[in-house]
Amino acid sequence: MEAKVGIVMGSDSDLKVMKEAAEMLDFFGIKYELTIVSAHRTPKRLYKYAENAEKNGFNIIIAGAGGSAHLPGMIAAVSSLPVIGVPVKTSTLSGIDSLYSIVQMPGGIPVATVAINGAKNAGILAAQIIGAFGSEVGKKIKKYKAELAAGVEEKAANLEAIGYAKYLNDV
Amino acid sequence: MEAKVGIVMGSDSDLKVMKEAAEMLDFFGIKYELTIVSAHRTPKRLYKYAENAEKNGFNIIIAGAGGSAHLPGMIAAVSSLPVIGVPVKTSTLSGIDSLYSIVQMPGGIPVATVAINGAKNAGILAAQIIGAFGSEVGKKIKKYKAELAAGVEEKAANLEAIGYAKYLNDV
Amino acid sequence: MEAKVGIVMGSDSDLKVMKEAAEMLDFFGIKYELTIVSAHRTPKRLYKYAENAEKNGFNIIIAGAGGSAHLPGMIAAVSSLPVIGVPVKTSTLSGIDSLYSIVQMPGGIPVATVAINGAKNAGILAAQIIGAFGSEVGKKIKKYKAELAAGVEEKAANLEAIGYAKYLNDV
Amino acid sequence: MEAKVGIVMGSDSDLKVMKEAAEMLDFFGIKYELTIVSAHRTPKRLYKYAENAEKNGFNIIIAGAGGSAHLPGMIAAVSSLPVIGVPVKTSTLSGIDSLYSIVQMPGGIPVATVAINGAKNAGILAAQIIGAFGSEVGKKIKKYKAELAAGVEEKAANLEAIGYAKYLNDV
Amino acid sequence: MEAKVGIVMGSDSDLKVMKEAAEMLDFFGIKYELTIVSAHRTPKRLYKYAENAEKNGFNIIIAGAGGSAHLPGMIAAVSSLPVIGVPVKTSTLSGIDSLYSIVQMPGGIPVATVAINGAKNAGILAAQIIGAFGSEVGKKIKKYKAELAAGVEEKAANLEAIGYAKYLNDV
Amino acid sequence: MEAKVGIVMGSDSDLKVMKEAAEMLDFFGIKYELTIVSAHRTPKRLYKYAENAEKNGFNIIIAGAGGSAHLPGMIAAVSSLPVIGVPVKTSTLSGIDSLYSIVQMPGGIPVATVAINGAKNAGILAAQIIGAFGSEVGKKIKKYKAELAAGVEEKAANLEAIGYAKYLNDV
Amino acid sequence: MEAKVGIVMGSDSDLKVMKEAAEMLDFFGIKYELTIVSAHRTPKRLYKYAENAEKNGFNIIIAGAGGSAHLPGMIAAVSSLPVIGVPVKTSTLSGIDSLYSIVQMPGGIPVATVAINGAKNAGILAAQIIGAFGSEVGKKIKKYKAELAAGVEEKAANLEAIGYAKYLNDV
Amino acid sequence: MEAKVGIVMGSDSDLKVMKEAAEMLDFFGIKYELTIVSAHRTPKRLYKYAENAEKNGFNIIIAGAGGSAHLPGMIAAVSSLPVIGVPVKTSTLSGIDSLYSIVQMPGGIPVATVAINGAKNAGILAAQIIGAFGSEVGKKIKKYKAELAAGVEEKAANLEAIGYAKYLNDV
Repeated sequence: MEAKVGIVMGSDSDLKVMKEAAEMLDFFGIKYELTIVSAHRTPKRLYKYAENAEKNGFNIIIAGAGGSAHLPGMIAAVSSLPVIGVPVKTSTLSGIDSLYSIVQMPGGIPVATVAINGAKNAGILAAQIIGAFGSEVGKKIKKYKAELAAGVEEKAANLEAIGYAKYLNDV
Repeated sequence: MEAKVGIVMGSDSDLKVMKEAAEMLDFFGIKYELTIVSAHRTPKRLYKYAENAEKNGFNIIIAGAGGSAHLPGMIAAVSSLPVIGVPVKTSTLSGIDSLYSIVQMPGGIPVATVAINGAKNAGILAAQIIGAFGSEVGKKIKKYKAELAAGVEEKAANLEAIGYAKYLNDV
Repeated sequence: MEAKVGIVMGSDSDLKVMKEAAEMLDFFGIKYELTIVSAHRTPKRLYKYAENAEKNGFNIIIAGAGGSAHLPGMIAAVSSLPVIGVPVKTSTLSGIDSLYSIVQMPGGIPVATVAINGAKNAGILAAQIIGAFGSEVGKKIKKYKAELAAGVEEKAANLEAIGYAKYLNDV
Repeated sequence: MEAKVGIVMGSDSDLKVMKEAAEMLDFFGIKYELTIVSAHRTPKRLYKYAENAEKNGFNIIIAGAGGSAHLPGMIAAVSSLPVIGVPVKTSTLSGIDSLYSIVQMPGGIPVATVAINGAKNAGILAAQIIGAFGSEVGKKIKKYKAELAAGVEEKAANLEAIGYAKYLNDV
Repeated sequence: MEAKVGIVMGSDSDLKVMKEAAEMLDFFGIKYELTIVSAHRTPKRLYKYAENAEKNGFNIIIAGAGGSAHLPGMIAAVSSLPVIGVPVKTSTLSGIDSLYSIVQMPGGIPVATVAINGAKNAGILAAQIIGAFGSEVGKKIKKYKAELAAGVEEKAANLEAIGYAKYLNDV
Repeated sequence: MEAKVGIVMGSDSDLKVMKEAAEMLDFFGIKYELTIVSAHRTPKRLYKYAENAEKNGFNIIIAGAGGSAHLPGMIAAVSSLPVIGVPVKTSTLSGIDSLYSIVQMPGGIPVATVAINGAKNAGILAAQIIGAFGSEVGKKIKKYKAELAAGVEEKAANLEAIGYAKYLNDV
Repeated sequence: MEAKVGIVMGSDSDLKVMKEAAEMLDFFGIKYELTIVSAHRTPKRLYKYAENAEKNGFNIIIAGAGGSAHLPGMIAAVSSLPVIGVPVKTSTLSGIDSLYSIVQMPGGIPVATVAINGAKNAGILAAQIIGAFGSEVGKKIKKYKAELAAGVEEKAANLEAIGYAKYLNDV
Repeated sequence: MEAKVGIVMGSDSDLKVMKEAAEMLDFFGIKYELTIVSAHRTPKRLYKYAENAEKNGFNIIIAGAGGSAHLPGMIAAVSSLPVIGVPVKTSTLSGIDSLYSIVQMPGGIPVATVAINGAKNAGILAAQIIGAFGSEVGKKIKKYKAELAAGVEEKAANLEAIGYAKYLNDV
């Protein structure tokens, strides 16, 4: 059984943020489809998308939105699939509005919320969910985390070796 | 032509707040229907309610919800009627989450937001909208405002007459 | 009966934001008059404006202000017309001060508040109010919303067709 | 020349907070008049009050209000007298709304804002203003501050003498 | 393959909140183990717990904590399993501190955050993750959501039938 | 009797903000002295400044500071003169830290707080205090306020005459 | 050389919070003196206290205050000793005002800030500072931390043994 | 006995902020080692670092991190040394997330928190701790503070001499 992730966003202005979810899924070799679904401007499209998500082979939905960010919660209302919500930073309230709109869901209808503009982590979380039951993806995540650690260790060794003044100069 | 207002709330736990909208509409002699529509637990009901609102004779919708308060915005997304949103106070974030979820709507889909727990004002605003075009309701609003003013004047006169110590004692 | 909207703002520095309300009213073919009324620097002008608003043929007032944003609430205090408040973004508190000043009105005197800098939605809300009773404007709003949806559908189709990398490149 | 202070509040529900301003003025032997003026429910009364304040012998106005707290700013807009604003605590936003509404006044129209529920300090500030030009009141303030200090010194001596356990027990 | 969920919390004072996650897992017939792991008082226990979580048969970890809530993020740092974080309400900052500590994870290490005190939703989200790949649990979630909707419909019908005054009286 | 105002700030980096207080005092023809007093770096200077303020002929102190803004409150603690506090905007918390530090003074020791970066209003407030007892300054303030109003009226007339598009173009 | 800690608070109303610092110092066998010093009501006492702190044998000062909490920062300004600041919870802003006032100190004058109402941790931090150079106190802290861990392990074992329902019942 | 300070940060992107701690330690002639330790990407490295800190001759740890800033608290959990936490400013929440994550530690495990981006003060605080027991460093701190004061006095004298207009021009 192969997993497939749906990535949706409320507006194409969110694409610069949300593409990081796609990049991580590419990195982990996970199939996905990415499109625009506006809760407010295309409510019927939202409803249809969420209602057919499972039928269309999706296992997880990643949804990003800003401001009165209703997209993740409404997909979670209609579909039974796990929904990962990405609060997109806004120009007036820095994404606190998006965060509160997405995370404060009522009992019964959860949205798995990541950091403001945390689309990269949404992609990784989807991979972790897929990998949670022993698949190949699980191994890839372990490898990814080991590489993250190695990257930090390398930078630390370099910093310790050359000192912060030179390090800052080199970077 | 007689106007009719729809009052909806996300949960019957919001009823103690939202009934004040109904009371004001009763006061102004405006017809209304009040019911529960949960954006998250009954998304189909929400769609149906909003889609048929105009057909069912509603001119204005008052919608109250707390937390990730998606109800007012989603009704505004589906229907073309003016929607008045009431952010209901929450136990964790005092209704700031509700307020941001309701007021920060994207361009194209407004929600007329009132104060946290401001259902009374939602009812008055609906009356003002109905009264904005010269109807009987318009006169009633002017009378209501005059009575508000008279009530303050009376209290002020009393306070000035008896002093604050006695006033506080009497109240 | 033809409707007319008054658009006022506290300072000409708000004009870049508030003109979007005018543009939407132009779009819907609604008459309006736009001017500057400062609650704090021209309180008499405010009082006169609000007291005569109905006499002068206005049906709805849109008022924008920033910081200690008293203009919408004071017009609502004096006039019985529905008042739409636009919290203008501020350099220090990003418009949270404006939002709280406008939305947290006491029982009796509502202001229909839209998002921070949401003047466009103020214009649409005014149109929805005018259109709520079956006029031509009501039809125009339905058409506008259909066009909003079509715009999203088109962008979504394009994004699905060419992929996010090319889409971001083209934009 | 004898000074006189006006104390106004938006609602008699603010009286429990605002009476502390009166008590301090009594303490300093300063004349005052206290009444209710609602910016939103009695805008004409507000205008009249502010416009005649100087004529009526007031030198300073203390104004308290909660939520969309427009009273202090609007008095400051109409009158040229110094206005001291008291943000009254609110049940939903704890008075942050009141504070922002009162303190964030635009250039040209200041309000001298004290702490949330800080009516006592509003009274003292009025006394300081009256005392700033060498009057009897100035001496009384110095005496008051000396007594404040003495009170703390006494408590400190007691606490040091008996230890915190006994001190807490005694209080 | 049968799934197993680990539920951990930073202190037994969080148990009243976190037990709701256990109750939902019981409801969906999902195996779980519940214990206390304090990131700050038992860091070794935390490391050991997280390092052995997969070996010990866990597929998902639900972690609740308040204040400087490091438990969910540190489990996510050590383990590759998906971690669901529950920000527990605090007496001083109402859980905003917990929420920010849990949700604002850096790129690479996500935590699936639910609402403040949202342990019930954490349990449902775990069930959705388990059910995302077509298992019996998936069917149970659909049934659960249908029952949620039916519950609202029933209450709405009752409210519409008897009116809000009687409804409030009966409840 | 001629009044004199002291203007102090915590750092010369606040000078760009605080000079507006000086400019307003110049405008009203009020004597002032302006200097730097850091509560944290020069506590003795602060103490000496505040203790001798009255002796040195000051009637009012304007104090601006940012972050942990202790300068206004500490001057108010030492001196009996009225102190006007100006919360200076900060790079991390936008001046909310400064505002809370300055305005939330305990009972007994008020600071008359103006808006974040509101040094201009601090100068005007000082003038109002001086003018509150019938001096020449009182007349100047009335004239200043009339000019503010006239400025708005003129802009409004211009905007109404040429329309917002041309107005925005001209500005 | 024996260390001595000074514990000061702005008001005896802070004693219920601040005594926890004393209790921890008692626990670790560290000498301390506890008294009241109000930055605002007894500024001279504050100066004298801070100026003589080192001479009087203190090595560390713990200072607690609420609202415009200037006490810790002003002691840090006058003295060269390390100052630990305890933001005391306030009735209006829950201690956010205290926290910002204490922690946002300018470059040059640090205050070691602990959690809102975190007086217990202030005592432990003082002990850690004293123990940082290999004294007996250092060993006691290690023992204390081991006991903290053991306490959690014991509760966890109990909870695992009897289940959460019985555990909640027993507590 | 010579003291040694450990400076760690969660990412090399924090180096521009955190180097100010190193610069202050250089200034006071205190030995330190600076490196990168990510709580989330290198949890084992964190554990090892903290567990061996005392063995490796460190007396104090300065730890800086942003967002879900777990590094300072986790070092404090593992080690018994005093830990100074530096909340690093973030692009979305300006460092409020970092501040709350670091300062709101539970009873038992303190972190000595400084201002957002306050790495300079972290270095000074470490010096104060080292100097609290009468060492050479103690004298250097007194000298440093005297120089801070002298710097302000000099600027103040200059400002008083040439006036603010010329001062601003010269700077």
